[in-house]
Order: sequence, then structure tokens, then C-alpha cells
Amino acid sequence: MSTIPYKIYLEEQEMPKSWYNVRADMKKKPAPILNPGTGKPVTKEELSGIFCEELAGQELDDTTPYIDIPEEIRNFYKMYRPSPLVRAYCLEKKLDTPAHIYYKFEGNNTSGSHKLNSAIAQAYYAKKQGLKGVTTETGAGQWGTALSMACSYFDLDCQVYMVKVSYEQKPFRREVMRTYGATVTPSPSMNTEVGRKINAEFPGTTGSLGCAISEAVEAAVSQEGYRYVLGSVLAQVLLHQSVIGLETQAALKKYGIKPDMIIGCAGGGSNLGGLVAPFVGEMLRGENHYQIIAVEPASCPSLTRGVYAYDFCDTGKVCPLAKMYTLGSGFIPSANHAGGLRYHGMSSIVSELYDQGLISARSVEQTSVFEAAQTFARIEGILPAPESSHAIRVAIDEAMKCKETGEEKNIVFGLTGTGYFDMVAYQRYNDGEMTDHIPTDEELKASIDLLPKIG
Amino acid sequence: MSTIPYKIYLEEQEMPKSWYNVRADMKKKPAPILNPGTGKPVTKEELSGIFCEELAGQELDDTTPYIDIPEEIRNFYKMYRPSPLVRAYCLEKKLDTPAHIYYKFEGNNTSGSHKLNSAIAQAYYAKKQGLKGVTTETGAGQWGTALSMACSYFDLDCQVYMVKVSYEQKPFRREVMRTYGATVTPSPSMNTEVGRKINAEFPGTTGSLGCAISEAVEAAVSQEGYRYVLGSVLAQVLLHQSVIGLETQAALKKYGIKPDMIIGCAGGGSNLGGLVAPFVGEMLRGENHYQIIAVEPASCPSLTRGVYAYDFCDTGKVCPLAKMYTLGSGFIPSANHAGGLRYHGMSSIVSELYDQGLISARSVEQTSVFEAAQTFARIEGILPAPESSHAIRVAIDEAMKCKETGEEKNIVFGLTGTGYFDMVAYQRYNDGEMTDHIPTDEELKASIDLLPKIG
Repeated sequence: MSTIPYKIYLEEQEMPKSWYNVRADMKKKPAPILNPGTGKPVTKEELSGIFCEELAGQELDDTTPYIDIPEEIRNFYKMYRPSPLVRAYCLEKKLDTPAHIYYKFEGNNTSGSHKLNSAIAQAYYAKKQGLKGVTTETGAGQWGTALSMACSYFDLDCQVYMVKVSYEQKPFRREVMRTYGATVTPSPSMNTEVGRKINAEFPGTTGSLGCAISEAVEAAVSQEGYRYVLGSVLAQVLLHQSVIGLETQAALKKYGIKPDMIIGCAGGGSNLGGLVAPFVGEMLRGENHYQIIAVEPASCPSLTRGVYAYDFCDTGKVCPLAKMYTLGSGFIPSANHAGGLRYHGMSSIVSELYDQGLISARSVEQTSVFEAAQTFARIEGILPAPESSHAIRVAIDEAMKCKETGEEKNIVFGLTGTGYFDMVAYQRYNDGEMTDHIPTDEELKASIDLLPKIG
Repeated sequence: MSTIPYKIYLEEQEMPKSWYNVRADMKKKPAPILNPGTGKPVTKEELSGIFCEELAGQELDDTTPYIDIPEEIRNFYKMYRPSPLVRAYCLEKKLDTPAHIYYKFEGNNTSGSHKLNSAIAQAYYAKKQGLKGVTTETGAGQWGTALSMACSYFDLDCQVYMVKVSYEQKPFRREVMRTYGATVTPSPSMNTEVGRKINAEFPGTTGSLGCAISEAVEAAVSQEGYRYVLGSVLAQVLLHQSVIGLETQAALKKYGIKPDMIIGCAGGGSNLGGLVAPFVGEMLRGENHYQIIAVEPASCPSLTRGVYAYDFCDTGKVCPLAKMYTLGSGFIPSANHAGGLRYHGMSSIVSELYDQGLISARSVEQTSVFEAAQTFARIEGILPAPESSHAIRVAIDEAMKCKETGEEKNIVFGLTGTGYFDMVAYQRYNDGEMTDHIPTDEELKASIDLLPKIG
């Protein structure tokens, strides 16, 4: 085993040529998304008003196992993929564990995260359909950054509604998007009806993701040649993100490594869903067994403390209803620096796999997450994003269990991105001022009680 | 040639096992550095009071062509090296040039730049000598970040004196260093005699690199078990940075590519010197010829408008004298966002190679640099550091010349790092508010007239 390099890079020709659609191998499929007006499953025609046609098709396709990655997208992938699968030799040594730790590092591109894998696909299909541009919302900014890059590559207009508080507190994120040619508008804005209404109702509001989604959707449907795009939760996003898992699977196979557990952080589920999809596929087909762990923040514990029910995907309740593990679309998590994990629900696919027992889940508290982040940064040299650090926390915990038991487990986790734009959070941690709030049962009940009564 | 991948990664076993010391192949060597007190060449004993012994030896060794990279350093290198040599297919297509453009990307690590290559070496030798820690100064912050990472890896104390204006304006840089366990002190501070003196003399001063160097040197010599380390200019730094050029050379050879020109940005010369060293070696040995271009900012044009003379390496005049192309140690360049290129002089090695005509030089104006940076970012997907973008500017200019002439030149340039912490500069550019000041002949004469009269 000493021949395993620090970084396993696939050759360019070993990169996946298709995405893997895990729904095709699921006997019990994720529940369909519903039109909030009719309460009936959304049709492709209905979806095509909001999304590009081809993406609407991918969203609803739960039978085709492999979907070709168009050549233009594969060429873009070649600029930053294959991403390395890294053997964490230094971390293993530091922990003095018999476990073998691997991480798939998705931060090796300017967007700084895995979000680019789907952004480029969504931009491509928009371009192919002859659209002028796309609209989206961004909170922490990783998705907006990735989409800006993708749109500049395909010469598409990109309109980003950025939650006002982030727009003001994360000026650098904003400037990255502007450098890539995107228009970044603080939300709520005066550009849209819903924005003007919210500004009138709540003067001085600093906005919310729910509001930004509503604005972006309105901007898409009210402009000729525009569609709305989203960076997580959706089945199409998990499909595109399967490139992470397919590369991981290929790299492990190349070196004859069989993972015992696969760990990923989970907010909306885009990274986790993509990373574990091919491994879950093996399990669904009865070929292998793996322990798969979704890690979520204790402040926003949709899998570990939520309910499995139909809910709105957005706080503004303009998007379709999805069956998912949710805390209720009105749930507002306490300030948590892992902005990408503050979503009230979980992708329908991940939710269904969790419900079937193929994925387990664990929640972790923020200070312990940053402790793991710091340990990792100091020994492995990569400054991880707060989101990614949730997976690091559990990977370290599991490696320490192996130290007790003497087991040589192969632990694989997803390192979704870098923390360059999260230094305010690191500063709080460095200054010993980090706090967290784990919602009480009463708080959760209050928002869960407001779930729509469907299904 | 269509078989050249987007990214050429060497295998781990193809990584260099020795650094290359270009001085060994130079018939006319760089002039020795002088003790400012005696005016005589500095001895290893004298240098060992400031630097680790082994580094003092490397600084003065101009005869050994290859110096083994210790295994501990090679293991650290494996965490982020080999760095990719990227074929800029997308940029070529965008420019519609017959030229083939390659860049060696050194931003693939948390420090975000090539500085880590020398930081880890300097930290290693400090640890090996049994030191407690090291001191240094940082301006823009890339060096301080790299050194913090290296020291945390070897469990060494790291004291960084950060120019006060940067400390306040770049809090995120500061926090990265703190996350890696470094102590970051705004300079001038009250920790040192020189700092107290400057604070008393100039109340409210925001500091300068010269002052921070003086404080770091004083802190090193006044604490038991500490030495001072520096991230550029020195011969030892260029030695360590030769890993960039050696990897580039090996990767090009692997695919049978003969570069026509090699372009690098030049501030103190650490990146350029490292990138071009092995190629200059081929030229010195009469094996090959390449066009080598050092690119500097028009606001700080040491090679293109300076004089070749002995000068102080620091504004505080506490360091040895070096013969170099210089604008005078009192020269203060106008505010230029490429903080890493604001040095008044140039590495003695690069200076001597330039004087011998082996390296040419070109200066570029800041707005045109950011224009190139933006073009590059949008099409190649990497957000470049302002420093690196100087090389991009000239690479694009040369590729456009090839378009006119129809020549299929192979252009290789060094992409030293990422611009994540330089978004203030990008913002100025995005807002059309970028300015630059090219010094007048009178301004240059004023500082050059003050050069010490030596040699």
C-alpha cells in the first residue's frame, strides 16, 4: 500500500463521460415534486417555464442511469478536473491512527467549491437553448461565484440576487462575481415586484435566501430569454455532481482501495448526493456495502431532527413542493458560519436514500467543526470551507475510533471547498468568540407544525 | 500535438529530488553580498547570526549545481506539488492565436502562491537546527501566510511583523496566518526598539516594509533560539524556487514541447528566478536558447529603469548590501495593488543574468494588467493574483504578435498565485477607478542619487 501517492489524479481520458443518475437504480423512487397550485406532480412543460428544457427533463428523469456529459462541458471540466483524491498521510500521522484517510478535494478552482460542476452544465444547456441569460440567488456566495464563471465562459448574462447582508459583509465575493461579468444585486431590491413589496413592508431589511429566490425567479420569468437556475437540492444538480463520486470511485478502483465509509457534509445535498451516488448505486444493485454518513450542523439538523414530508423548497413559497426531510420552510437557523448548510430541507433523493437506510446522518456543533478545520489546515495545508469542515470533523472522529479499536478502515470524505472567503468565521474561532445555537424541540416543533398538509 | 492534456501533472516519482543552483553554471557569478559595517563580503559566520546555518551556507554557495531536497521537504511538497503545467487551450481559442500557451500554476495551495516552496525549506532547516522559531515581515501577506503554514507543519513558533496598513486593510490575510498559529504583529509595534523609536518619531505611521524588516530582524537576534527568514531576493530563496522550473522543464520534456519564450513576473525575483533557472542553465551550458522575459510594474521598474549597483536590501539599512538592479532603497513606488512587486531592487542572481543579456525585461502599466487578469479569469477560470497578471499581460501580448505573424510559438509563463485576497484591487478595476503612477525620471534620479558609493 505504500505505493499510493499523496494525490491520486486520474488521467484526462479516465474522466467520466456520463453522469450517473442514482434514481434509475432505486426501486422506490423519490416522491415527485408537486405544483403548489394544483397539488399534482409538476410536468416537464410546467418546469420548462422556469428551467431550461433539457434541465427540466433531467429533473424529472428517474429511469435513465447514465446521461452523456456533452463535449463542451467535458472540455470545461478539463480545466479544473479531475480533482485530486488525496491520501491524508500527514493527518493520519498526526492522529496516530491505523485508519487510511482519503479526501476528494473540490476546491481547486476559482469558484472555490464543487458548485462549478453543476453551474457549467446549467449554463451550457441555457446557451444551447439560445437563452440570453440566467438568474439565481446566492447566500454565502459559492454558487453565485461558480455560476458567474460558467456564464462568462459561455458568454451568457448572469444576474445574481445576493442576500443583502452577505452583499454588504462579503464584498470580496461580490467582486469575484463582478470580475466574471455578473450583475450582482442586493436582495431585496427595487428591481422586482416582490423585492419592492418586501422593502415597503420591512424597511431596512437585510434580506433572506427565501426572498432572494423569489426575486430571482420573478426576474427569470419576467424577462424574455431568461431562466432560473439553482445550485443545490434539485435532482439535476445531484446528477451533475455525480462527477465527484464517479471520479472518486475510479481513483479508488485504480489503486485497489475499498472504502469502508464515505462521509460528506449536507446542506441541500448537492455535494453529498454527488459524492455518494455511484457507491449507493453499488449498494442498490447489491454489489457492495458501504457506511455512508451525511454530516449536518447541529443548528440546522434537517435529517437528524426533521420530518419526512412535503414542504416548500423556498421560504417565499413560489417554488414547487418537494418531499424531503425538513425543519419547515419557516425555520430560521441561528447564525451559522457554514452558510451553505443553512437550508431548512434536504434534497429529495438524499432524503429518500436516508429514509431507506442507505445513508446515515450525524449532526455536529460549530466550535468542534472549526477545531477540526484548524487541525486539518495546519497539517494538510488546505484551509477548508466551514461547510466542508463538517465532514472533516466526523472523519477525524471516525479515525480516532479506529485508533481505539485498531481497525485499518478506509475513510473517504468530500472536501467540498476552500475557506478563503470565510475568514470572519475563522477570526471568531481564533478569538474564542464562536457561538452556536442548537434549536430546542419547541423551536423545531413550531416551524414543523406549519408544514403544508400534503401527501 | 492534440494529445497534450489541459493539465500536465508529473507523477510523484517524477518530482525533482534536488534543487538547481544556477550560480554554479554562471561563469561570471553574481557579486557577493557585503557586510554594511566592513564593506567586505559577508562570511557564513556573520550570516549565521541572522539565518539558520544551513541556509547561510546555501546563500553563499555559488559552485554546487544540485543540492538535495531533504526527504521531509519532499514529503511536504507532495501535499501540493507537482503543480500543474496547464495548456491554455481556452485562452488560445479566445485570442484566436496560433501560439501554444502554457502556464505553470503555483496557486494550488492554501498560501495561494509559490512562496510555500521556500517557506517549507526555511522552516525545515530552522527545525533541524533545533530553533524555537522564526521571525519575518510581510507586506501583501503571501509570504507570511506561506511561512505560517510551514511553521505549523514543523511545530515552530512563527512571528510575523505585518506592515500596519496591510494588517488593518487585509484582516483576512491576518486571520489565515493566525489560523495557522502565527503571531501577527502590526508594524511598527512596541515590541522592538526600532518599532518604539519609529512610533515615537512618526506617531500614527502606518508602517512600511523596510520598517517591518528591521523589526523582524531585531526580534530574531534578540530572542534565544530564533532566526530571521525572508521570502524573496535571496539566493537561497531562488534555489528553493527552482523546483518550479525543474517541474516545468520535466513536464515540457515529457510531452516533447520546446518553449520559445518563458515569461515571469518579477518583484524581488523569487518566482522568475525559480521558474527560469533550469532553462537559463541550458543556455549557460550552450545547450539551448530561449527568450526569457521578466515583467515588472511600470510603477516600480527596477530592471528597465534602475541602475546596477550595490544597495541596501531594506529601507532600514540593517541588512547586507547586495549588487542589484535598483531604484534606490529610498524609492517608494506609488500605490500599486501588486504588493509583491513593490520592491526597490532585484535579486542579485536575476540582476546578473539580466546584465549578461540572458534575461530581458519589460514593464507594464497596472490597468492593462488587470484587463489581462480579467480576460484570463473569465476564460481560464482561475482568478489570478495581480502579481501573476503581469506575466499574463505579456503572454497575451506575445500571443497576439504570433497571430499577426502566424508563428506557432510555445509560450510558457508562470502563474504564481491566486487573487482571492486582492479583491479590493479588482473592485477598483471593476469600478473603473484604478490608477497608476509611472515615476518620472526626476523621481528615479532622486532616489538613485542616494545609493551608497560602493564597488
